[in-house]
Amino acid sequence: MLTMQEALTRLTAYWTEQGCLIVQPMNTEVGAGTLNPATFLRVLGPEPWRVVYVEPSVRPDDSRYGENPNRLQTHTQMQVILKPDPGNPQELYLGSLAALGIDVAAHDVRFVEDNWASPALGAWGLGWEVWLDGLEITQFTYFQQAGGLNLDPPSVEITYGIERIIMALQDKQHFKEIEYAPGVSYGEVFGQAEYEMSRYYLDDADIDANRRLLELYAGEAQRMIDAGLPVPAHSYVLKCSQAFNVLDSRGAVSTAERASEFARMRRLAGEVAKLWVARRAELEHPLGLVADLEPARPAGAAQTGDRPRTLLFEIGAEELPPAELRNARAQLQRLLTEGLAATRLEHGEIRVFGTPRRLIAVVQAVAAREEDFVRTVRGPKTSAPAKAIEGFARGHGVTPEELATEEFNGVPHLVLRKQESGGAAPQVLTAVLAKVVGGLRSAKNMRWNDPKLAFSRPLRWLTALWGDDVVPVTVSTLAAGRQTRLLRTAATPIVEIASAETFVETLGVNGIVADHDDRRELIVVGAQDLVYPDGRIDVAGESALIDQITDLVEQPLPLLGTFDEGYLTLPDAVLTTVMRKHQRYLPVRDEDGKLLPMFVTVANGPVDVELVRTGNEAVLRARYEDARFFYRADLDTAPADMRAKLTRLTFTDKLGSMADRADRIGTLAGQLGERLGLGSPALTRAAELVKFDLGSQLVTEMTSLAGVMARDYALRAGESRAVAEAVFEAELPRNTGDALPRTIPGALLSLADRLDLVTGLAATVGLPTGSSDPFAVRRAVLGLLAVHRSTPEFASLSLVEALSVAAAAQPVPVSAEVLAATGDFLAKRLEQMLTEEGQPVDRVRAVLPHFARPSVADTLLAQLATAVGDADFASVTAAIQRARRIVPEGTPATYDVGALKEPAELALHDAVTTVRAALDPALIDLPRFVTATGPLVGPVNTFFDDVLVMADDPAIRAARLGLLATVRDLGDGLLDWPALRL
Amino acid sequence: MLTMQEALTRLTAYWTEQGCLIVQPMNTEVGAGTLNPATFLRVLGPEPWRVVYVEPSVRPDDSRYGENPNRLQTHTQMQVILKPDPGNPQELYLGSLAALGIDVAAHDVRFVEDNWASPALGAWGLGWEVWLDGLEITQFTYFQQAGGLNLDPPSVEITYGIERIIMALQDKQHFKEIEYAPGVSYGEVFGQAEYEMSRYYLDDADIDANRRLLELYAGEAQRMIDAGLPVPAHSYVLKCSQAFNVLDSRGAVSTAERASEFARMRRLAGEVAKLWVARRAELEHPLGLVADLEPARPAGAAQTGDRPRTLLFEIGAEELPPAELRNARAQLQRLLTEGLAATRLEHGEIRVFGTPRRLIAVVQAVAAREEDFVRTVRGPKTSAPAKAIEGFARGHGVTPEELATEEFNGVPHLVLRKQESGGAAPQVLTAVLAKVVGGLRSAKNMRWNDPKLAFSRPLRWLTALWGDDVVPVTVSTLAAGRQTRLLRTAATPIVEIASAETFVETLGVNGIVADHDDRRELIVVGAQDLVYPDGRIDVAGESALIDQITDLVEQPLPLLGTFDEGYLTLPDAVLTTVMRKHQRYLPVRDEDGKLLPMFVTVANGPVDVELVRTGNEAVLRARYEDARFFYRADLDTAPADMRAKLTRLTFTDKLGSMADRADRIGTLAGQLGERLGLGSPALTRAAELVKFDLGSQLVTEMTSLAGVMARDYALRAGESRAVAEAVFEAELPRNTGDALPRTIPGALLSLADRLDLVTGLAATVGLPTGSSDPFAVRRAVLGLLAVHRSTPEFASLSLVEALSVAAAAQPVPVSAEVLAATGDFLAKRLEQMLTEEGQPVDRVRAVLPHFARPSVADTLLAQLATAVGDADFASVTAAIQRARRIVPEGTPATYDVGALKEPAELALHDAVTTVRAALDPALIDLPRFVTATGPLVGPVNTFFDDVLVMADDPAIRAARLGLLATVRDLGDGLLDWPALRL
Repeated sequence: MLTMQEALTRLTAYWTEQGCLIVQPMNTEVGAGTLNPATFLRVLGPEPWRVVYVEPSVRPDDSRYGENPNRLQTHTQMQVILKPDPGNPQELYLGSLAALGIDVAAHDVRFVEDNWASPALGAWGLGWEVWLDGLEITQFTYFQQAGGLNLDPPSVEITYGIERIIMALQDKQHFKEIEYAPGVSYGEVFGQAEYEMSRYYLDDADIDANRRLLELYAGEAQRMIDAGLPVPAHSYVLKCSQAFNVLDSRGAVSTAERASEFARMRRLAGEVAKLWVARRAELEHPLGLVADLEPARPAGAAQTGDRPRTLLFEIGAEELPPAELRNARAQLQRLLTEGLAATRLEHGEIRVFGTPRRLIAVVQAVAAREEDFVRTVRGPKTSAPAKAIEGFARGHGVTPEELATEEFNGVPHLVLRKQESGGAAPQVLTAVLAKVVGGLRSAKNMRWNDPKLAFSRPLRWLTALWGDDVVPVTVSTLAAGRQTRLLRTAATPIVEIASAETFVETLGVNGIVADHDDRRELIVVGAQDLVYPDGRIDVAGESALIDQITDLVEQPLPLLGTFDEGYLTLPDAVLTTVMRKHQRYLPVRDEDGKLLPMFVTVANGPVDVELVRTGNEAVLRARYEDARFFYRADLDTAPADMRAKLTRLTFTDKLGSMADRADRIGTLAGQLGERLGLGSPALTRAAELVKFDLGSQLVTEMTSLAGVMARDYALRAGESRAVAEAVFEAELPRNTGDALPRTIPGALLSLADRLDLVTGLAATVGLPTGSSDPFAVRRAVLGLLAVHRSTPEFASLSLVEALSVAAAAQPVPVSAEVLAATGDFLAKRLEQMLTEEGQPVDRVRAVLPHFARPSVADTLLAQLATAVGDADFASVTAAIQRARRIVPEGTPATYDVGALKEPAELALHDAVTTVRAALDPALIDLPRFVTATGPLVGPVNTFFDDVLVMADDPAIRAARLGLLATVRDLGDGLLDWPALRL
Repeated sequence: MLTMQEALTRLTAYWTEQGCLIVQPMNTEVGAGTLNPATFLRVLGPEPWRVVYVEPSVRPDDSRYGENPNRLQTHTQMQVILKPDPGNPQELYLGSLAALGIDVAAHDVRFVEDNWASPALGAWGLGWEVWLDGLEITQFTYFQQAGGLNLDPPSVEITYGIERIIMALQDKQHFKEIEYAPGVSYGEVFGQAEYEMSRYYLDDADIDANRRLLELYAGEAQRMIDAGLPVPAHSYVLKCSQAFNVLDSRGAVSTAERASEFARMRRLAGEVAKLWVARRAELEHPLGLVADLEPARPAGAAQTGDRPRTLLFEIGAEELPPAELRNARAQLQRLLTEGLAATRLEHGEIRVFGTPRRLIAVVQAVAAREEDFVRTVRGPKTSAPAKAIEGFARGHGVTPEELATEEFNGVPHLVLRKQESGGAAPQVLTAVLAKVVGGLRSAKNMRWNDPKLAFSRPLRWLTALWGDDVVPVTVSTLAAGRQTRLLRTAATPIVEIASAETFVETLGVNGIVADHDDRRELIVVGAQDLVYPDGRIDVAGESALIDQITDLVEQPLPLLGTFDEGYLTLPDAVLTTVMRKHQRYLPVRDEDGKLLPMFVTVANGPVDVELVRTGNEAVLRARYEDARFFYRADLDTAPADMRAKLTRLTFTDKLGSMADRADRIGTLAGQLGERLGLGSPALTRAAELVKFDLGSQLVTEMTSLAGVMARDYALRAGESRAVAEAVFEAELPRNTGDALPRTIPGALLSLADRLDLVTGLAATVGLPTGSSDPFAVRRAVLGLLAVHRSTPEFASLSLVEALSVAAAAQPVPVSAEVLAATGDFLAKRLEQMLTEEGQPVDRVRAVLPHFARPSVADTLLAQLATAVGDADFASVTAAIQRARRIVPEGTPATYDVGALKEPAELALHDAVTTVRAALDPALIDLPRFVTATGPLVGPVNTFFDDVLVMADDPAIRAARLGLLATVRDLGDGLLDWPALRL
């Protein structure tokens, strides 16, 4: 059996054979190998660097007293940095697995999108988690930025999770059982430390001491930066990070504190990075410079042919993320279509395919040549002086006699008609295809060893054939040929393609299914077959997941796995969240929708089915074990006790603990309920419990289950269903498009939650501006609006008033200015929300005065939608607008009736008086308003026909304007009339 | 070329083959691999443990900006722990060198005594530095105690200094040139960090911040101890240590602070150790228990013989320290002589030899058997009842008739005479030799894998032959045989010995010189030959060093090495201190005593001379380079500037900085000089500079050069020779037997230094008690006395008064009680000192009232030595003593003359009155006193003859007693008469 220490030795040996230096772990606690200066500093700047080292990585948050089988406060990373990207890092990586004795062809080894970012380090990269039979064993990243600096060249970072790999290889269920060295278990060597350090991180670390350590560290880091010493400065940044992590694991970090500490660490790390780069330059880069790769040479000359042939163009990539793959297929279709359209090459259908490792375009019947054509060059007018004409002719190497005449805008000009022959297809296509590749962009682009290209993941090869011939396109360092690549684990990973026409077939013969829909079909049918007859896959419900899976494989092989029935005692949401989110497994249910203890996973390629199944089952078991660990611990804790733990969880330093916040939410929900006459015992109880599951271990671990677990735990603790629903619904909506509360207590709590968040943060941190919104205030506001709109019982509730009530309960003063700004913010979000829902902007603006009661705005918009086709509405609107247009702004709606003499004036006065008396100003109902104001239309029109408003006599003029202002203001509480464009 | 990373890999592989686990370096800064819990905690308790790991070891004090070729703030240790001692750890270690490709037979590999102790960890062990051609490459220790706990079993700790080894193997002059990995130098990888961390440790670390860190760490350590968690507690102890080291390298640690921090760390480490042991016991020792070795079985039965043969007894050891070897030889001689004397074995001369690895006893002509003899068993008195007599006879298996009669104390008893035959030599010797081994003790004993034995170093084999036969002695796990061991690197490291008679010859044939004197001769003659004719070895002056060298080798091979003449610009003391103290090299001088650029080192065994020479030269070069680095830096600094640096060096927290102390010393020396009329411009100037070299780098590095460097730097800075001598002499005496100041300014400063130290510490820390004397107050007091005694000009100076003057200058109040106690302390030390010099105790006590002026005590002692043979002195003394004996204590020396009537009374009164009038009470001169008091002898004797002192009349009795008291008190200021025993 391969022991853990032997595995470390073998990996080290393998990577030193690849030219890596060995360095030692960092001698201060770090959360990951990335923080070691051998990575963080060395990836900066232009010097080459290859290194391998072990890094015992400390994650205080992962402390489990050594009880959890898969979670350790200190786990062992093996870190590899390749700078520059050697061009084949994935292949090198697979070689390292082979060095561990892993048969990579038998196992399902996958590169699954994972975009890594460390906000505290100002660092990010794109890459993958590497899965071994569903188990994440390695983080593989093209490091793009560190300390806020772009990395040029980028580095390849490979981080192995050693305990996980060894547990899988040794088939152990608990990390303590790992054979660490011959005859010595991991638990025997590290078990006690694991327990004791867990105790420190979870229970015993002194919060005040660690806070002071954090400050001292930050101070020293800054001092060293000021002294121009990046190395000790970096060391202190790492100490900051550890102290912060300790505070965090002790539950002593508020949201605001987290944000500000991250900001500080990011700033410090950024300054360290800048300093390092500067110092290395000063030292004239002791390790030399990385040289750019040379541009590729074309594979040969473009051939010619004489009949239309198929064009095949394949762009080979490292595993593209599913979303990027979809996007890239569309781009390829568009770019190629446009590119060909700009030529004179005739061609047939353009079809585009994609798998994680390739984008394929197949164009039918591409003509052998462009059609010949005549190009017309416009010369001088025919009336131009002879000299000008001669000059033009001479400039084109012809005589004036050879020029023809053509009219432009009716003016006759001399023109030169040039007969030009079209290019041969391969030649023309070379340019088109190069442009296509250069034009590809992803949502998040990265760099690799290519000096010019940037894309979602590295592009590694091009295959371009027109019929039998290579189209000799080159793009930066890539030159197209006739070779394509199959699965890396195939017996022959690289094959030659005979012709464009046989390409997709060749792939297919080798197992690779180019077409998304074909792969999807294989997966769906395969999965359904596997679970038949006992189970079913919710193909519609899991559609997004299936799409994602489809784009994670080239050669799908659905496999059925099972898990212990015992885990079914865990909540459905827990089980499926793990399956979908963490493992991309399809859940299997029975006829009644009840989960079955099985799952379908989809391997890539002809793996050893039993091996891969067993591996995936072990992974799921480990994850469920983890979840069960938390779940059981949670069930031993009464909701009230979990709720009590919120006192240890700071919300923000100025806004108190999460317990304070939950108290405010509960009180506020009660106040709103009372005000609306919606109070109930369920509300009262739910208000006491709201947010209690934030004190649970499972939610701490899987935050997306907040609310869901509250409901579960509440029910199990004997609370009524109404209460359980309410504490669940209090969290709704969790994101745009999420479900909304359906019960009144739930809706009230949801509203109160968001009102509290928004007012408190507006008063302390400020409302979000630009793209920065660390506390997700925008999302809270959108939720606020959505809940109000979806709850008819809230129609009479003004959110502005509700904000005031919430503000009064804050532990800090909330000024009138802040409240006003918050109202404005709400209004803007509502405007945006309604517009995005497809409402015409003018109507949205017209109803926006009702933003505080968004459901009223909804009603009005609905009425407006009907009204806009209505003649009465048109007349009333026209009348009112007519009055508005003539009356200067600020004119009061009062007038001296005695000054009115004209009949039209008096008629209007009578009509207005009657209408106004009949009109309930609180009535927000457009049809009724139209009906009520209809009698005004005639008098208004007559007035304008008969009366000159701007009379010379100021008194008369004032009275007339006042009269019109009264008309103007009739609908003031209803709509913002000027906004309306009819 | 073996790269550094390959060396680490090979050593790791080698030790894993020996069953070691691999663990990672500690993830907090540590000064040595010992601090890693894989050593510090795992050596505790009864569990087995074998481990190998790399430890980048941080020594802030060793920071040199990467400029010094051999000194790094972070160097790489490779640490191996073998628990239990495998019995052959040195051989395993040599195997590891071979694994590195080192030809251990060609090189001079030596185990040189090094007793390791870490006061801060409450840890110690005995062992060696391993020298490779004079270069210390490894620390090899039998770990005896950690955290104040005895280690049972002890562990073997092997610590490689990797950079040093690699520099030697790669023949590099600077650590930066090391080939760290193929094509990558050490400097390229670590150079920048070396510079920057040096900056931090030497210049930029914030002292206040690090002080606060230290407190926070200590607080967390204590909290974790209280929580029963040794692992996190230990981690915080390590952080304490690092913070302390940072403060130290920033020059911010006072002597007192050092002592108190060490005490705190020791206490914390001790509690951690206790907790760990308790926790492991609770966990039932997950790694199992180490089993004791079985006792050895005898090599065979004891043979018999018929004629006297030589006895050979060899006790094989791992390299014994020279001092212990000397001691052990003497013990062997004594134990064996006593052991044989307790037998009836006749034998000839007992000769004892010793080399570092063996103690040898050769006894000539040991008879084949003990002589037969008659043993007499005493029975009852002849007058005893018959029953008793019968019982006695029956008890011995004889009849009453067989009993004889013998008188005891004149009473006839029955006795049994048993004829007993003597034992055969091998049998008798078996018991004698076993007892000899068991009786060996060293000054500092250690334990190894033997469950019963304890000695200076492990005993590994016994060779015992009587003539041709093995004496089958067993001692614990050792059984004697006929094999002995040669050099470990010999072609045949183990050989059989034919007979006791041929043993020493067999050793000799194999190159091992058993006899100390023979080895010494070989070394002296060899060294002299090597340097002839240009140089000479100061054989007499270097006698102690030569003795030491003699006991460091078994097969001496003197080698001549040279060094660059350029280093001769360094002070002689620096060069020779390095040679003698660090390298055990013999300095070579020319006829005029000037140092030559060469040295003699003595290798052990038939090494490759060129290789070893080159290696030793490189070592010396490195050390001189180091010294030159400091020396040059120091020469760039004016003495006054160095002196100014003392403000940064705290003496003790209550007694201010070293600058404050130097100020006080200067002032005090001036005051004393003035009082004694010994002031001078040289004193004034020297007082300004005194102790300035403590601010120099060289003295910081080599503290034994304090004073020596002051003189050198002062002269080079243009000070007068008198001033330079004075600042040198201010440090004298540095230890018992050291030179004393010869100039008045020097003596005054020396005195002032010690007066200041003693009064300040007495008032703050207290006077030393028991064996604890962290500030070496005892040494200071001895110095004080010695300087006073050696300086006639100080005769009139009372040290008690001088202490008062010094006390007045302290920044803390020094109470009268403290001053009195200090005086007592001085008196006691003087008493001890004089006694140790061979003065009779009674005379010492008699002069002790003059302890404050020890030179006066000296004078008096000299006078006493003469006087004791003098009749007049005897008479005077007798007279005075006679008076003293009769007068009750406390009787005042006054009397009513009128009460005296008897002639003898009146005669004595007259004589006393005359003598007293003539006697100068301040005169401290015994001969003069005797002369002056001579006239009293007659009257005293007459008085006693004629007068009954104890008259009935109280008035008369009082007058007579008063008269005698007056006689008694005449010499009160001179001697403590009652102490004197004549």
